[in-house]
Amino acid sequence: MPSRALPSAGFSITIRVAVTADASAIGRLTTCVGEAGAIVTALDVVDSDHLSVIADLTCDTADTAHAEHVVEALRKLDGVEVRKVSDRTFLLHLGGKIEVHPKVALRTRDELSRAYTPGVARVCLAIAENPDDARRLTIKRNTIAVVTDGSAVLGLGNIGPAAALPVMEGKAALFKRFGGVDAWPVVLDTQNTEEIIKIVTAIAPAYGGINLEDIAAPRCFEIEARLRERLDIPVFHDDQHGTAIVVLAALTNALRVVGKDLSKVRVVVSGAGAAGTAIIKLLLRQGVGDVIAYDRAGALHRGMENMSPAWKWLADNTNTDNYSGDLSGAVNGADVFIGVSAPNLLTGDDVATMAKDAIVFALANPDPEVDPREARKYAAIVATGRSDQPNQINNVLAFPGVFRGMLDAQARQFTEEMALAAARAIADTVGQDKINASVIIPSVFDARVAPAVATAIRAVAKGPIADPDAPEPSEIDT
Amino acid sequence: MPSRALPSAGFSITIRVAVTADASAIGRLTTCVGEAGAIVTALDVVDSDHLSVIADLTCDTADTAHAEHVVEALRKLDGVEVRKVSDRTFLLHLGGKIEVHPKVALRTRDELSRAYTPGVARVCLAIAENPDDARRLTIKRNTIAVVTDGSAVLGLGNIGPAAALPVMEGKAALFKRFGGVDAWPVVLDTQNTEEIIKIVTAIAPAYGGINLEDIAAPRCFEIEARLRERLDIPVFHDDQHGTAIVVLAALTNALRVVGKDLSKVRVVVSGAGAAGTAIIKLLLRQGVGDVIAYDRAGALHRGMENMSPAWKWLADNTNTDNYSGDLSGAVNGADVFIGVSAPNLLTGDDVATMAKDAIVFALANPDPEVDPREARKYAAIVATGRSDQPNQINNVLAFPGVFRGMLDAQARQFTEEMALAAARAIADTVGQDKINASVIIPSVFDARVAPAVATAIRAVAKGPIADPDAPEPSEIDT
Repeated sequence: MPSRALPSAGFSITIRVAVTADASAIGRLTTCVGEAGAIVTALDVVDSDHLSVIADLTCDTADTAHAEHVVEALRKLDGVEVRKVSDRTFLLHLGGKIEVHPKVALRTRDELSRAYTPGVARVCLAIAENPDDARRLTIKRNTIAVVTDGSAVLGLGNIGPAAALPVMEGKAALFKRFGGVDAWPVVLDTQNTEEIIKIVTAIAPAYGGINLEDIAAPRCFEIEARLRERLDIPVFHDDQHGTAIVVLAALTNALRVVGKDLSKVRVVVSGAGAAGTAIIKLLLRQGVGDVIAYDRAGALHRGMENMSPAWKWLADNTNTDNYSGDLSGAVNGADVFIGVSAPNLLTGDDVATMAKDAIVFALANPDPEVDPREARKYAAIVATGRSDQPNQINNVLAFPGVFRGMLDAQARQFTEEMALAAARAIADTVGQDKINASVIIPSVFDARVAPAVATAIRAVAKGPIADPDAPEPSEIDT
Repeated sequence: MPSRALPSAGFSITIRVAVTADASAIGRLTTCVGEAGAIVTALDVVDSDHLSVIADLTCDTADTAHAEHVVEALRKLDGVEVRKVSDRTFLLHLGGKIEVHPKVALRTRDELSRAYTPGVARVCLAIAENPDDARRLTIKRNTIAVVTDGSAVLGLGNIGPAAALPVMEGKAALFKRFGGVDAWPVVLDTQNTEEIIKIVTAIAPAYGGINLEDIAAPRCFEIEARLRERLDIPVFHDDQHGTAIVVLAALTNALRVVGKDLSKVRVVVSGAGAAGTAIIKLLLRQGVGDVIAYDRAGALHRGMENMSPAWKWLADNTNTDNYSGDLSGAVNGADVFIGVSAPNLLTGDDVATMAKDAIVFALANPDPEVDPREARKYAAIVATGRSDQPNQINNVLAFPGVFRGMLDAQARQFTEEMALAAARAIADTVGQDKINASVIIPSVFDARVAPAVATAIRAVAKGPIADPDAPEPSEIDT
């Protein structure tokens, strides 16, 4: 297990220092930062005279404590004065990460009277007469809600709606950046299942889809199922379906690399919450050999007491041998480990007991179930959720294209067939000739992914393939 | 009373026609459109040969029926073929009028890891520890919700949430255009007071203010009052307070023009709903001489039966002589008529019975309480809500600056003092030397208005005067 996470850009700080202007001054600074375990990414001289140099030193650190340790180390250097420490992540978040832009010009009275009163009244009346026109004449055509109750945010747990907002804003930014989808954060100050269902139903008229996000299991299952019954727009729980799609895509290619067949492998899934449950259901649908679901209470097996309906379903439909031992025992001889649970549950020694050409997806964020550096000593393929490691299993490969496709097709629901099609599209984006143990999944910046996923979704939805820029007939066309 | 409304840009259509290529062809087209009562605003030749001309003829019409009449007139012309009719207002609304823009670049892994995982986790934790940091580190700093239940939309009535969406989108566009405020439409598929209160309370964490919009009276009063108790962000019902602010501003200047004193004038307000009630309360607060509130049930007076609490309050606090007659009788001898009710309630003859130098604000939209052309024969000053008439009483003069100021000051509530200050700021934007009977209120395009209102609001809020672009200290500044 790592004594400390790796330095990353997510913990980048900029330290303004004044140092005496001798030849070795800058060298001593960077040496000090390096010895403190941080990585210098930039050094900019802000000002200097014959006596001193003022410089901005930017470095990646591992976490807040490490950042403070680095600053302290600099403070102890002779002739160095620390002036100011800026946290680049916090600076980037000031004032939020998304904004609302008008798409219409409002320069003249004429423009105003078309976009607003009196002209807008006719558009309202057209929708009142034919409610489905809202999909054509309003933001509903391209807009989804990103809904959370703040109960299971990243790996941080139940931090509430306000603290969840930066994640939802980031998600909205990703939706636009990668899928051209307008997404709006809806952070709810309630964790009551019935209230959440009522609220999402009530706000739905403005949206062409609902993306549920970071809502704790098992509440998320009921909310999703009930909203699907109530609404005529697709409801997608990204923690479930987004994760399952990308995991299936990555596993498809990982099995290609090691030459194993999904129908013959044994998979251990650690974490039987939202993500784990959806992953297992999709693997079963795709015909996996065997799966054992594992959670804090142990391996889910028939005869276990006090199970939720969701767990009971898993116990009844997985774990052929009804294994009930510990996690180390479960992975012994397994072909695949998929962790969507908690940091540091396994050691390299555990991975060593897995079958030949083992596949390890340790996706707990930010700290994986097993140190990927340790896992790589024994497994053929290792993937994590981290952007600073190879094979990043990142939902951003799925959700922008999935919603792009569903909005284009004016889909009324999200289906398991769409999930399978999306996973295939992602896997196939990595060309057969490019696949290897470190490249089982496309980069999140691969511009081909979202369009490929959207195309696959539209084909399944069998709806009209709309071009958002194409002109549409106006009301009184003849 | 007008037989037909005036042609306006809100009902602009573009007609593609093919005509025989003789010298008089185009002239006959424009003559025909003019004789049909429309106004030609553009004529573009699309294609031509020696036999025929294809042209796009754009004209303002009065309403949908009139537009159809114009097209029929063209169809009857010899040698004219109508190819296609496009409605410019509908074309402008296709796909909605606002979109969501990321404010952060997401080009590289480093940028991704600061804006999203893992970096975002620290921002979440900071807000979890200190919830007020959401006003600094999220969209809450500059974002408000525009909330409606679709029950009283423009003059269209109870058309529901989907049909109300084009108005709320337009409002959001105006908020950004005139106040730099990010506003998001929340259209609710419920008209239950308790549910609306619960929902707005639940979604509030993402917002720095709530703008209630087009919610029917008297429900709107309770929703507003209860939300003010529950929330620590300002709640503003634009139909009430926005209208009241702009009416008070316009009346202030109108009284300056005719040289009358507010404390000595008698005002008749037609429409005792959301707008009328708020106008009356603000006029009373400012010390108006006397007011009579008028609604479908007649003049609100003491002894009237079956009054709502809101009407009872009005009856108890207005109408000094306890007048109980009809509207024509009420305006007889009155100095000011303010209509926020329904079309065509008064004639020019009624206006003729008002006091010398009468002031008429006929604000029903799109068709005023009295034809402004008739009213102008007898009143000294006439204002309407229409953008195609002088003295447009338009809420856009108030709401962008009001919310700009409240967000800048991080105000926790909207107060009556803010309303008075905003009205003064709007009135004073029209310089003393510029005021006349046709200019009692600034143009909605007067760029000085919103900043002046915002400054006035900030002064009342006595909060910090924030510069949204100013850098703020990051978390671990030393």
